[in-house]
Amino acid sequence: MTEQQNLIKESIKTIPDYPKAGILFRDVTSLLEQPEAFKATIDSFIAAFAGRGFTKVVGTESRGFIFGAPLALALNLPFVPVRKPGKLPREVISQSYQLEYGTDTLEIHKDAIVAGDNVLVIDDLLATGGTIEATVKLIRQLGGEVTDAGFVINLPDIGGEEKLKGLGVTSTCLCSFEGH
Amino acid sequence: MTEQQNLIKESIKTIPDYPKAGILFRDVTSLLEQPEAFKATIDSFIAAFAGRGFTKVVGTESRGFIFGAPLALALNLPFVPVRKPGKLPREVISQSYQLEYGTDTLEIHKDAIVAGDNVLVIDDLLATGGTIEATVKLIRQLGGEVTDAGFVINLPDIGGEEKLKGLGVTSTCLCSFEGH
Repeated sequence: MTEQQNLIKESIKTIPDYPKAGILFRDVTSLLEQPEAFKATIDSFIAAFAGRGFTKVVGTESRGFIFGAPLALALNLPFVPVRKPGKLPREVISQSYQLEYGTDTLEIHKDAIVAGDNVLVIDDLLATGGTIEATVKLIRQLGGEVTDAGFVINLPDIGGEEKLKGLGVTSTCLCSFEGH
Repeated sequence: MTEQQNLIKESIKTIPDYPKAGILFRDVTSLLEQPEAFKATIDSFIAAFAGRGFTKVVGTESRGFIFGAPLALALNLPFVPVRKPGKLPREVISQSYQLEYGTDTLEIHKDAIVAGDNVLVIDDLLATGGTIEATVKLIRQLGGEVTDAGFVINLPDIGGEEKLKGLGVTSTCLCSFEGH
């Protein structure tokens, strides 16, 4: 691990038994409370993604906004939010995805992505990959390409990385935690 | 209006009759799609708030994250999210506030603010001021001071500015829209 990666990983607190018994929750808010760790996070994303020809950054509600928006600013690219249903005011398309119990839905503005866009997807955490899979489907439905997604945290034992590979998306994760 | 303010205001689309008939919705996502307008927004906040002795930036879920997080990064300050119930993993305190119909609740990590903190609150839109009033109460309950709040958009006819004055909070808004 580089010094930067170490700083990022050390800043993330682990909360046992949240949201339920047996789960070790990786708390990204503790990273945000340490400016040097937050800066190292955005700098690491810039190093990974600058000069790669992306035309837009998409962040998923709501922790994806915290990392996607500063990265879009730094890369001088439009930032496009993917949101929970009923939150976006212009015409949208929707995509449902599976949760442990039941389903959830994400939406994107129909005019926010155009054919030929090369879209970078950013979120805080790669776990099952369900929200990112839904996000990739939304972008592709509008004619955008998605080859890359960036995450602060990877939980490799949960299988999200494999799911993204199956979609033809390369994931860049700044730190990994084994187990879950 | 300065050129920067003009750029910001021009980038914000108005959606008629959203979320219901008679409402002119000011759509901040259109600003995010224009990198130069998004940059002008963060630069305007930096100009207003740098060197003023703030110790933390608080942003409210979820559009407040989009502006608060990049500003915290630029000011080299911790970023503290205020969230909807059940989203924060550590111990929280809660504050309810009035909506047009019913109430809503916001939460903050109990250990995210300490006595003596001088906290800058950031959100996208100042309308009734209800969410910001709840946020100010949460911060003060934890011993933090709040003298300033920054917004991209002000809707002066709805009364939020007056409510914040009553709380002893100065609001800095980058652009105003009359009517609502």
